[in-house]
Amino acid sequence: MTEAVEYDVVVIGGGPVGENIVDRTRAAGLSTALVESELVGGECSYWACVPSKALLRPVLARADARRVPGLAGAVGGPLDTAAVYAHRDYWTGDWKDQGQIDWLESIGVDVHRGHGRLVGVRKVSVTGPDGEQHVLSARHAVVVATGTRAMVPDLPGIAGARPWTSREATSARQAPGRLVIVGGSVVASEMATAWQGLGSQVTVLVRGARLLPRMEPFAGELVAEALREAGAVVRTGVGVEAVERDGSTGPVGVVLEGGEVVEGDELLMATGRAPRTEDLGLDTVGLTPGGWIGVDETCRVPGFDWLYAVGDVNHRALLTHQGKYQARIAGAAIVARAAGAPLDTAPWGAHTATADTRALPQAVFTDPEAAAVGLTLAEAEQAGHRVRAVDYDLGRVSGAGLYADGYRGRARMIVDLDREVLLGATFVGPGAAELVHAATIAVAGEVPIARLWHAVPAFPTVSEIWLRLLETYRG
Amino acid sequence: MTEAVEYDVVVIGGGPVGENIVDRTRAAGLSTALVESELVGGECSYWACVPSKALLRPVLARADARRVPGLAGAVGGPLDTAAVYAHRDYWTGDWKDQGQIDWLESIGVDVHRGHGRLVGVRKVSVTGPDGEQHVLSARHAVVVATGTRAMVPDLPGIAGARPWTSREATSARQAPGRLVIVGGSVVASEMATAWQGLGSQVTVLVRGARLLPRMEPFAGELVAEALREAGAVVRTGVGVEAVERDGSTGPVGVVLEGGEVVEGDELLMATGRAPRTEDLGLDTVGLTPGGWIGVDETCRVPGFDWLYAVGDVNHRALLTHQGKYQARIAGAAIVARAAGAPLDTAPWGAHTATADTRALPQAVFTDPEAAAVGLTLAEAEQAGHRVRAVDYDLGRVSGAGLYADGYRGRARMIVDLDREVLLGATFVGPGAAELVHAATIAVAGEVPIARLWHAVPAFPTVSEIWLRLLETYRG
Repeated sequence: MTEAVEYDVVVIGGGPVGENIVDRTRAAGLSTALVESELVGGECSYWACVPSKALLRPVLARADARRVPGLAGAVGGPLDTAAVYAHRDYWTGDWKDQGQIDWLESIGVDVHRGHGRLVGVRKVSVTGPDGEQHVLSARHAVVVATGTRAMVPDLPGIAGARPWTSREATSARQAPGRLVIVGGSVVASEMATAWQGLGSQVTVLVRGARLLPRMEPFAGELVAEALREAGAVVRTGVGVEAVERDGSTGPVGVVLEGGEVVEGDELLMATGRAPRTEDLGLDTVGLTPGGWIGVDETCRVPGFDWLYAVGDVNHRALLTHQGKYQARIAGAAIVARAAGAPLDTAPWGAHTATADTRALPQAVFTDPEAAAVGLTLAEAEQAGHRVRAVDYDLGRVSGAGLYADGYRGRARMIVDLDREVLLGATFVGPGAAELVHAATIAVAGEVPIARLWHAVPAFPTVSEIWLRLLETYRG
Repeated sequence: MTEAVEYDVVVIGGGPVGENIVDRTRAAGLSTALVESELVGGECSYWACVPSKALLRPVLARADARRVPGLAGAVGGPLDTAAVYAHRDYWTGDWKDQGQIDWLESIGVDVHRGHGRLVGVRKVSVTGPDGEQHVLSARHAVVVATGTRAMVPDLPGIAGARPWTSREATSARQAPGRLVIVGGSVVASEMATAWQGLGSQVTVLVRGARLLPRMEPFAGELVAEALREAGAVVRTGVGVEAVERDGSTGPVGVVLEGGEVVEGDELLMATGRAPRTEDLGLDTVGLTPGGWIGVDETCRVPGFDWLYAVGDVNHRALLTHQGKYQARIAGAAIVARAAGAPLDTAPWGAHTATADTRALPQAVFTDPEAAAVGLTLAEAEQAGHRVRAVDYDLGRVSGAGLYADGYRGRARMIVDLDREVLLGATFVGPGAAELVHAATIAVAGEVPIARLWHAVPAFPTVSEIWLRLLETYRG
């Protein structure tokens, strides 16, 4: 092992989070290294958000078009799936990262290809593809941004069944005849929408009571209803006991509690995420491998002045955009600390990731789309807020009815009755993904209800839901 | 003439503005009469926003679908225009207002069908369809909410040419072979988009330098570019001198300055709006007929304690949603004054229409859509603000590229450098109409830039334009 190469900042993990960190530390003049064992650009770019949305957009656009009089007749048929896959491949850069590498080089970041591991305080070893190892040291900060991998439960027969995870589900080049999906989360809901739309017969097996369990109940209910209308089977309250598959191309059987077997041509296990921290050398600095890495509001690991964990791996919010947000905040904190400058760690300060807990947004690209920010009613009540949930049928908004014939959707805002501000909002309906940012600004901005009354939605947009919600609240 | 029937409030004009006023005064227990000479529901419901959007949505949805790989091939052909017109007719209730009448009766509003005129202080005469006249008197308030009509310039030959105005353009049941549109405003731009999409060969003759002159320059430029690509002819800097038409079904000729004649099968004059105040009895209370009616921030006419003018007719903002906003504000002011309660007329107070001047939103349903709120760069500079315009190419946002292949659009935000808040924002691109409400909340809420930094747009939505604009601003 050669002598350590010294940098100001060493980042392990070159997904969107790591990329945002290095962008900020470099812009501040800090020498920076990025260690990546797979593709720079990360899960999001190659096996998650980007390819999934490339697959989903044609499905959702067709569903939208089918609800438009005068256009509906033209879009009754199947999609040109070859064009869809080719477009998805374009967006993933055919799973090559040269463009990202070129950008990093252009901003002066050293990219170290290989597996990064902590090897003591401020030290990171990099094991290259050929097994060669070298060590980096960090004057100011080591940032762990290794994200998550799909977590597949250790069911009998699971290994031999070779299930899809989010990676295969977003990179497949052909729709399975029958796709069985185990799970009810965002991945399960989106991939059910995508593959049912791309030609599969999809069956979703949900352990819990509904899809999208972290959102308001009506979100998962409306998505399940639409999936069923699109021809998918959605079963809730279903436990899986084992998986069976003979040979490499045969059908796969999912054995439910009680013994029933659901058969498919492929099986997608969308059963959660696990942190990529097993083989990260956490033990060399006294932390436990394999777990989530807890951090403070600046994304620094308590007890360390040099170690940060940013993005999925800290378990604050498993969403690309929120990891990028944390990267902006943590990047600013690293830069400020390196310069000996004071930090602003008051709520909503420049160096504190307040939005993780107060204004976390999410958009789910199902049909209907589901988007939310902040607290649900249940979360707000559990947190002890005195709140009122205000609901409105999105289909009754003129702009929605003009957008889609028979528009179905629902919106809810959660009002903090003591402060008269919004704590959260949920929108479910066609196009809802673009409705939520207004709520994110209202929640993060703590804009009083009395002022929101002056924020006039243009007629006839779907956004007029805001007027209806406020009118309903004010009675 | 019989003795006057007394009410607390008499509203002249039953468009969305009048309807919102009476809804509020009735809810507060004030006896209320509504006078309407045509259809209750007004211009917006029958000959403007609603039918225009019913015509436009299929055109825009097809344009959107053509930009989606895998779906584009299916939507290359013409729209089923019969279905489009039938759907438009459904949304206008086949130009019948019984549903609106039923609703007004259900909330206890007396509807007086006929032409309303002021006949002195607190008195309104109603001339019914049969010429019979009766008088209403108002204890607390008379509200003029008569809106506007299309203003057609008095060109040689114009009467004989029987030009379309916005009414014919939104209610026509067949696409003219060649439609010539004079004007460059919202009506001109939207109707050009609609009718070119529904099968006409459209020619737009714009006197000024561009379409949509009240928006940021790039809005009209992008809309003109797209109209041309769709096959329309858009000519700017063109003055019209006269109009020629022989007989009732022959072609119409538009004579340009210089003598060139542009021929069409129909002519749409989209040349502005005039207040409906000519025959309103304004002279009986000392005001001048035919003009706009100036009002204070509560929408009350200066010098009167009982006379209000709300909506288009006061010339503060010629937009349905903003008229409705004024109706909410003025309605609350009328109710408060009737009760002898104090008014909150501080900026953004409950009884002041501050958004008219500070946060006026508009959405134009062209392809691309154009939406804006607050001040443009030119308006902000003219008002003496120290500002910076921050621009970003919407097509570079991942969410936009995934929404539409080759997405073209642009966004601009105007930052007040002294207060570090937004004074305005403009979004032009497919789907932009739903992007603007976030900016409306930011502008009306005066949310500081430093707080907007914590309002995280979900990835990959088009709304991520917010992150790019803020990053660009912060450098």
